[in-house]
Amino acid sequence: MAELCKLPGIGRRSAERLIFHVLKAPADEVDRLARSLDDTKSGVRHCDVCYNLSERSRCRICEDPERDRSRVLVVEQPRDLIAIEQTGQYRGLYHVLMGRLSPLDGIGPDELTVDALLDRVRDPSKQPGGVGVEEIVLGLNPTLEGDGTALYVKERLDELGSGVTVTRLARGLPSGGSLEMMNKAVLADALAGRRTL
Amino acid sequence: MAELCKLPGIGRRSAERLIFHVLKAPADEVDRLARSLDDTKSGVRHCDVCYNLSERSRCRICEDPERDRSRVLVVEQPRDLIAIEQTGQYRGLYHVLMGRLSPLDGIGPDELTVDALLDRVRDPSKQPGGVGVEEIVLGLNPTLEGDGTALYVKERLDELGSGVTVTRLARGLPSGGSLEMMNKAVLADALAGRRTL
Repeated sequence: MAELCKLPGIGRRSAERLIFHVLKAPADEVDRLARSLDDTKSGVRHCDVCYNLSERSRCRICEDPERDRSRVLVVEQPRDLIAIEQTGQYRGLYHVLMGRLSPLDGIGPDELTVDALLDRVRDPSKQPGGVGVEEIVLGLNPTLEGDGTALYVKERLDELGSGVTVTRLARGLPSGGSLEMMNKAVLADALAGRRTL
Repeated sequence: MAELCKLPGIGRRSAERLIFHVLKAPADEVDRLARSLDDTKSGVRHCDVCYNLSERSRCRICEDPERDRSRVLVVEQPRDLIAIEQTGQYRGLYHVLMGRLSPLDGIGPDELTVDALLDRVRDPSKQPGGVGVEEIVLGLNPTLEGDGTALYVKERLDELGSGVTVTRLARGLPSGGSLEMMNKAVLADALAGRRTL
């Protein structure tokens, strides 16, 4: 039960319920569950290029010749990538940093995949199809740590002197929200980033 | 009790509690409450220029010579104005539309204060200090109805041919949020509105 409690969202009560289910279930069903967990762990790896989750050495996005390979969107985690893919509005490639700079948690630049990103920009042969990177879109979380990480990545890219365009996702009012419910930081961003119609 | 139940956020239970409080309270306290409600209703009006809530014919923002009178931020309701004032980041004037276009609720252009806004743009003598309007910032809610209203106001301003700059508040990721929790519309806005760093 201690093992189950380590899972996210599973407390003592849920763990008990799961155990009683396992005890009542037929042995072969339990076996299949255990095997599928093992397979997931051993079968899923990170893409050699972008660090997305993948079952092969390159993920299906890096392998897709229809994607715009001159554009790379940088995210913190594979689940951010999934959220952006679900919009259907982005046709470029990705780069997963595998976290964000967080000095308090002891996460520095060496824990992230920034060097691999710089390699992709510096050397087109590291890119799918050998296509040179023209735009890096920073898609980190709109938080203090995300902003700090974006700044760090931007600085490293500038040092490279590659002339790649660095953009970041727009900050402002979230579509569907209501002005009076927004906090000051959101409204200040919305004011500062206002655009001519 | 029926009267109390009409107030926002007051259901049967709360109304009962309020009534028991009133019954127990000293008569002069109840009198003061009733009087202050009356005073609020009769003492508060809309600013002649911007329709903000005010105790005089012009609100304190329109009266303030320190504000940038060449900029007018258009909001739906006085409470949106309060939210933006609390950021301390905006130093211009406002214009409260007193609602948004909502055909289903029977709210058309005539129910809003668009004509008064156009007058301010057309004729500087309608503006505090006689200062001509140079920028209109559309600060409507990031909803379907808010967007529709913004489009309508923008068209009316274009018809005027006044050359005033029309901007709108930035749309995108809300500061402090997390990418994976955003809905598709927010992420699509953030992608479409991305900016060069």
